[in-house]
Amino acid sequence: MAVIFERVALLGIGLIASSIALGARKHGLAGSIAGHARTAETRATALELGLCDQVYASAAEAVKDADLVIFCVPIGAMAAMAKEIAPHLKPGAVLTDVGSVKKAVIDAIGPYVPGGVEFIPGHPLAGTEHSGPRAGFASLFDNRWCLLTPLDGTDPDALARLVAFWQGLGAKVDQMDADHHDLVLAVTSHAPHLIAYTMVGVADDLQRVTESEVINYSAAGFRDFTRIAASDPTMWRDVFLNNKEATLEILGRFTEELFDLQRAIRRGNGQQLFDYFTRTRAIRRGIIEAGQDTDAPDFGRATKEKGQ
Amino acid sequence: MAVIFERVALLGIGLIASSIALGARKHGLAGSIAGHARTAETRATALELGLCDQVYASAAEAVKDADLVIFCVPIGAMAAMAKEIAPHLKPGAVLTDVGSVKKAVIDAIGPYVPGGVEFIPGHPLAGTEHSGPRAGFASLFDNRWCLLTPLDGTDPDALARLVAFWQGLGAKVDQMDADHHDLVLAVTSHAPHLIAYTMVGVADDLQRVTESEVINYSAAGFRDFTRIAASDPTMWRDVFLNNKEATLEILGRFTEELFDLQRAIRRGNGQQLFDYFTRTRAIRRGIIEAGQDTDAPDFGRATKEKGQ
Repeated sequence: MAVIFERVALLGIGLIASSIALGARKHGLAGSIAGHARTAETRATALELGLCDQVYASAAEAVKDADLVIFCVPIGAMAAMAKEIAPHLKPGAVLTDVGSVKKAVIDAIGPYVPGGVEFIPGHPLAGTEHSGPRAGFASLFDNRWCLLTPLDGTDPDALARLVAFWQGLGAKVDQMDADHHDLVLAVTSHAPHLIAYTMVGVADDLQRVTESEVINYSAAGFRDFTRIAASDPTMWRDVFLNNKEATLEILGRFTEELFDLQRAIRRGNGQQLFDYFTRTRAIRRGIIEAGQDTDAPDFGRATKEKGQ
Repeated sequence: MAVIFERVALLGIGLIASSIALGARKHGLAGSIAGHARTAETRATALELGLCDQVYASAAEAVKDADLVIFCVPIGAMAAMAKEIAPHLKPGAVLTDVGSVKKAVIDAIGPYVPGGVEFIPGHPLAGTEHSGPRAGFASLFDNRWCLLTPLDGTDPDALARLVAFWQGLGAKVDQMDADHHDLVLAVTSHAPHLIAYTMVGVADDLQRVTESEVINYSAAGFRDFTRIAASDPTMWRDVFLNNKEATLEILGRFTEELFDLQRAIRRGNGQQLFDYFTRTRAIRRGIIEAGQDTDAPDFGRATKEKGQ
């Protein structure tokens, strides 16, 4: 694949940025990669792993001459950083981010974007529960969605190049407005994360069940919650603080529905439970058909054994 | 491995029974396997896949001469079946089950167990979201726990043989009393399942977000919920109806905790959220160390790509 941006600057070098770097190198999408990280340790790791060609303690220095600048820091850190880098951005540069919330990112970065720089907010729906520069891998975005929420008047050519960059990393790209993005993500990601965090916290609190019991017997459902609830605390704090309204709306609907099912359990209404559980199964089938998960009956462990 | 039970009878032939059959054959744990299923289609499938040597439309016929009889039907069907098979059980036979709740199973089966038959309730903590005789695979129980809740006065030799059978299938075996089992499972399995079902139902209801959006953008959290929420509706209806008290207690604690976190979001209390999310991360590490899940940063997809 041809180089799409001659110089790419990554602001923050964690799971997402390191995966972008590895993917961009593998697919030849960038001429060179600059990186900014606050700590000397992260900068050293980025050089050691070959993620970046140059690393900088200063974000302002990192963005110099960059054709694509990607904010890969927690949302809470974006406004100050945008203010800092603004005077140093190259005219014609594309500025984007990977934040999980889009309205708040537009509020944080938007006011500082200088004329001649194209700001196109973005959000790759990919991640693991691991964080840091060593957590990345080149295939993280393979067949995953990247949602862009372009503002009115975005230059079509800049947009096309950013789309091509994400597609080059293996992602499928979709576009929507920022408000809608934040609602969709509240449903598919933010509320589920808070719920998972909560359930794991409850298990941890319960004195009559030991921690080793919770850990040993987690296979039947709880394990998937712990995976979700192990995600980066700083990132998730910022997600909830920055997508407050949509998350609280979805959580309100969730508790309403949960109370209704609790009532069905208390009253022994088996038919209501059965009907509800049957309906949710269909959604799972849709996700498998859409290629967003595997249908392997053993969840991918020991597939060789299957059917024997 | 040596044959542990000369003849094994499986009552109900779904995911768990078919996995027991495949594992028992692979490891040579049973001389022969009889199966009972209500539908002719399931019986034909069991023969076609080689799960059973003989299949029976009648449970009473299936248990004749069996040294080990395993109830693999939903909990709601156990009492009537126990009554039906009781007069046909071989003296000295071991009777067990794979139900997700143990007090209710003891209440359902216990009264019908004839003298000279050893009833040892059991629960393998293994499963997938698939059901039916074609869903089984021999390694389903590998490195998973099987919890036995023996009653007072259980014959130690019968217990030892049942333990050896489950270990032969690859499982680790633990013993506890039925009350404690039901509380532990309410935390690690039953409450998480109800929560996952609820969240998937909420997503399905939300008119402003299309179904295809929910499906496409499920990767970031929601996908794991849909996996849990795709489990067998009949089985789960019976679980909740039969572990009512413990499940409602845990759900009560869950909503209490969730409300506290919602309040933190509404008030913008980032420190509380950060501290909570940091605490839950430690539990995840414990589960990985206990070998109940993998630490692969890409969740097992495309591991070859890692670090490139």
